[in-house]
Amino acid sequence: MPIPHLSTALRGPILDLENRIINAMPTIEHWLRTKWREHTVPFYCSVDLRNSGFKLAPVDTNLFPGGFNNLNPEFIPLCVQAMMSAIEKICPDAHSILLIPENHTRNTFYLQNIATLQSIMQHAGLNVRIGTLLPEVTIATQIDLPDGQTITLEPIIRKNNQLGVSNFEPCAVLLNNDLSTGVPEILQNLNQIVIPPLHAGWATRRKSNHFAAYDRVAQEFADLIGIDPWLINPRFTSCGEINFREKQGEDCVASAIDRILSIIKRKYQQYDVKEDPFVIVKADSGTYGMGIMTVKDGSDIYKLNRKQRNKMAVVKEGLLVSNVLVQEGVYTFESINEAVAEPVIYMIDRFVVGGFYRVHTGRGIDENLNAPGMYFVPLAFETTCLVPKSAAQPNSIPNRFYAYGVVARLALLAAALELEQDHSEMSAALPAQTQK
Amino acid sequence: MPIPHLSTALRGPILDLENRIINAMPTIEHWLRTKWREHTVPFYCSVDLRNSGFKLAPVDTNLFPGGFNNLNPEFIPLCVQAMMSAIEKICPDAHSILLIPENHTRNTFYLQNIATLQSIMQHAGLNVRIGTLLPEVTIATQIDLPDGQTITLEPIIRKNNQLGVSNFEPCAVLLNNDLSTGVPEILQNLNQIVIPPLHAGWATRRKSNHFAAYDRVAQEFADLIGIDPWLINPRFTSCGEINFREKQGEDCVASAIDRILSIIKRKYQQYDVKEDPFVIVKADSGTYGMGIMTVKDGSDIYKLNRKQRNKMAVVKEGLLVSNVLVQEGVYTFESINEAVAEPVIYMIDRFVVGGFYRVHTGRGIDENLNAPGMYFVPLAFETTCLVPKSAAQPNSIPNRFYAYGVVARLALLAAALELEQDHSEMSAALPAQTQK
Repeated sequence: MPIPHLSTALRGPILDLENRIINAMPTIEHWLRTKWREHTVPFYCSVDLRNSGFKLAPVDTNLFPGGFNNLNPEFIPLCVQAMMSAIEKICPDAHSILLIPENHTRNTFYLQNIATLQSIMQHAGLNVRIGTLLPEVTIATQIDLPDGQTITLEPIIRKNNQLGVSNFEPCAVLLNNDLSTGVPEILQNLNQIVIPPLHAGWATRRKSNHFAAYDRVAQEFADLIGIDPWLINPRFTSCGEINFREKQGEDCVASAIDRILSIIKRKYQQYDVKEDPFVIVKADSGTYGMGIMTVKDGSDIYKLNRKQRNKMAVVKEGLLVSNVLVQEGVYTFESINEAVAEPVIYMIDRFVVGGFYRVHTGRGIDENLNAPGMYFVPLAFETTCLVPKSAAQPNSIPNRFYAYGVVARLALLAAALELEQDHSEMSAALPAQTQK
Repeated sequence: MPIPHLSTALRGPILDLENRIINAMPTIEHWLRTKWREHTVPFYCSVDLRNSGFKLAPVDTNLFPGGFNNLNPEFIPLCVQAMMSAIEKICPDAHSILLIPENHTRNTFYLQNIATLQSIMQHAGLNVRIGTLLPEVTIATQIDLPDGQTITLEPIIRKNNQLGVSNFEPCAVLLNNDLSTGVPEILQNLNQIVIPPLHAGWATRRKSNHFAAYDRVAQEFADLIGIDPWLINPRFTSCGEINFREKQGEDCVASAIDRILSIIKRKYQQYDVKEDPFVIVKADSGTYGMGIMTVKDGSDIYKLNRKQRNKMAVVKEGLLVSNVLVQEGVYTFESINEAVAEPVIYMIDRFVVGGFYRVHTGRGIDENLNAPGMYFVPLAFETTCLVPKSAAQPNSIPNRFYAYGVVARLALLAAALELEQDHSEMSAALPAQTQK
C-alpha cells in the first residue's frame, strides 16, 4: 500500500511552541514518567488535536477509540509492543480477554477497527474473543470484512458474575463500547476486571470534567517548560438544564459564548492573531461528532432555526442533550489536498502508537470535522511521534509530530485524573459492591 | 533509503518448528510474561541465530550489542518505545545517563552504533553523554560520522565513587564496553547503578554458563509447546586448561568434538538430515568472532598448523584463550544475493526491536560469519518479529521472523538466568562492597 506523503500536512515554519516542546524533551519525558507512577494510565485513548499555527490543543479525548483500522499498517508493531505493556498490568496471570464492541453489524469501518484491535491483542499474546451486546446475535456469527479480515461476534454468557462466551472464561473484559445509552444490566456488578472502567462511558462521563482536569495538567506542564498555558489549552465553560428544542437555558449558553469570545479576543490581541475568534458548542456527554456547532457571537444561539435546534438537541442513539460545553474554537491550519484536516493521535497504555488525519472537503477551518463525509489519511511511518529530529531540521515534520504526541499525552494524563476523580465520586455515591 | 527486499532471505516452506511456534503464540507470550516477573531482563541484548531449515538456534548472545546502526531506521520508534520501558526501571527519578563505549576512535561503524544508541535514549527522554575510558581523551572531543551523525567523547570524572563527565552527574552508567581486558579500576566499587552489571563483561562471563542456562530454558520451552529441545538448542561442552600454541589440552577438545559429533549424527539420522555434522570450537570468553573454527573430526585438532594455532590462541585485545566451547554447528540455509547470511536479533528490555542479516560472501554455510569481510543488511519493517500473519500465509516471511523473535528471547531469558547465577556466585566469592 502506498505511504501517504507528508507534503500534505502543515508546512509552515515550526512554531515557537513546538520548538520549546522539542527542546524540553528529557524534562517532559521524565515528568510524564513520574506522572505514570502516580496515576493509572487509561488502557487506550485517542485524542483529536487542532493546530492553528499559534496554538496546539486537544479538543476531544476518546476513551473507546474506534479507528485502529485507520492507523498506518507500519505502526502496528508499535501497537503490539505497547499492548504487551498494557496487558501485563491487567492480566499478568492469564491470557484471555473478552472484547465488547459497539452494537454495529453493518458499519464495516467500525468492524475493521475491531478486527485490527483483536489482531493487535492477539499478536501481544492474548486469546481474544468478541462478545456482542446485540440480542439478535444468538450464535457465533462470522463477518467477512472488505479489507480481508474476518471477525466473529458471539453472544455473551454471564455466569457467577463473570462474562464470557462459549467455552471461554476471560480474565478481563475490554470495552470498545462507549455506553452512550447507559450501562447495560449484563455489565453491572461484575466480579471481573472491566477496562476502561464503567464510569468512563458516556452514561456518566462529562467532557467538562475532562477539560477541568486538562486545565490542571496544562497549567503544570506550562510551568514546567515555561509557556503560556493558553497555547495548549482551549478555554471552556459548561451549562446545564439545557433543552434546545424548548429554547430552555439559552441565556446561560449565550453569555458563556460571549465570555469565552472576549477571553479569546484578548489573547488574539496579545499574540497578534488576525483571525476571528469562535467557540464550539457541543454536548457535554457523547460522541460521534453529533450535537456540535460553531458560533462567533452569543446572540446567534437565539437565532437557531428548527432544524439547527433539532441537530443540537440529540446525540448518538437519540439521547437528549441537557448539558453543553462551550469551548474555545481552535482553527486548524492543516490541509491535505486542499481539504481541511486535523490530527487524531492514538495511544495504548502510556505510549503514542500512531495516528491519522481526519479530513473533510466540505468543512471550514473553524468547523468540527467529525461529520459525515469525513475520511482518514494514516500518518506515514517516518512521522511517528516518537522520533523528533532535534539536530537536523528544526522545522521538519517529525518535530511537529513529537509535539503532537506530547500534547496528546497531556490529554491522556487529564483522562487519568478525570477517571480517578469520577471513581472516588462514584464510590462515595454508590453502595459498596461485592468484591471477590 | 531503499528497503531491502525479503526475497533474499530463506524462501523454503515454513518449518514444522516455525508453525508450532506461531500456533502457540498466546501460550508463549504468556509464559514469557511470567518469566519476566521472576527474572530481571537484561537492559539490552543481541542474539546471533542460525536457521538450517530443520533447526533454529541461537549461537551467540551479546550483552553489549554493537550494531544499533545496522538496524533499519524504520525500527527506531520500536527501540525508543522499548527504551522508555527499560529506563523506567533504572532511573525512575532521574533523567541522565553516562554511556561508556568501547575504546575505539577510528572504527566509524562502531561509533555510528554509539551515536544511534545515544539518539534512541535521547528520544526516550534521557540526557545522555559519552564518557570514554581512553586516557588520551582529556577534553571533550567531537567526532563527525559518515552517516551525518556526530558524537562527543568526554573524559570520565570519578567523584564520591560516582562517574560523570564535566557538569554532568548521571544516575546510572550504561556500558557498551564488554570489559574484555578486565574491569578498569575506575569502574570498581561504584556507588552508582551500572548496567549491564560488571560481571556481564567478558572479564568474568563464560559462554558455557550462558549455554548451560539456555539448556534449561530450551528444555522448559520445548515441554511447553511439545517439541524436541534439540530443534532449538545446539549441543555443547567445554574444556579448560587449553593452550593452543603449546598444544596443551588438545585431548579434551578432540574427544569433546567427537562426542558432540556423534550426538549430532544420531539426531541427523532421526530427522533424516543429509548434511555432514560439524562443530564449532571457540573461546569460552570473548567476542568479535575471534578464536573460532569449524571442525568435522576430533583428530583435526591435532593437525592445526602454526597460523591456525595462533588464530585460535588469542581473542580481542590479545587475550590468551584458556577455555574453549565445543558447540554443535548449525548450518545457515539463508542467503542474500547468493552470499551466506545469518540473522542477528536486537532486543531492548523484553522487547524485540529489530535485527539485520550478517552476510559474508567469502564464507560457507558451515562457517562463522563474524569475520572481516562481513556486511549487514537491515531487516525490512514488514518483517518485524512482532507481527506474524497466522491466518493469511502460513509460510510468509513475517511468520519466520516471529519464530526468530521467540528463539532470540529464549536466549535473552538464558542471559537473565546466567547473570543471576553469576551474581550470586560473585557475591559469595567477593568481599561485601559498600552499599549506599
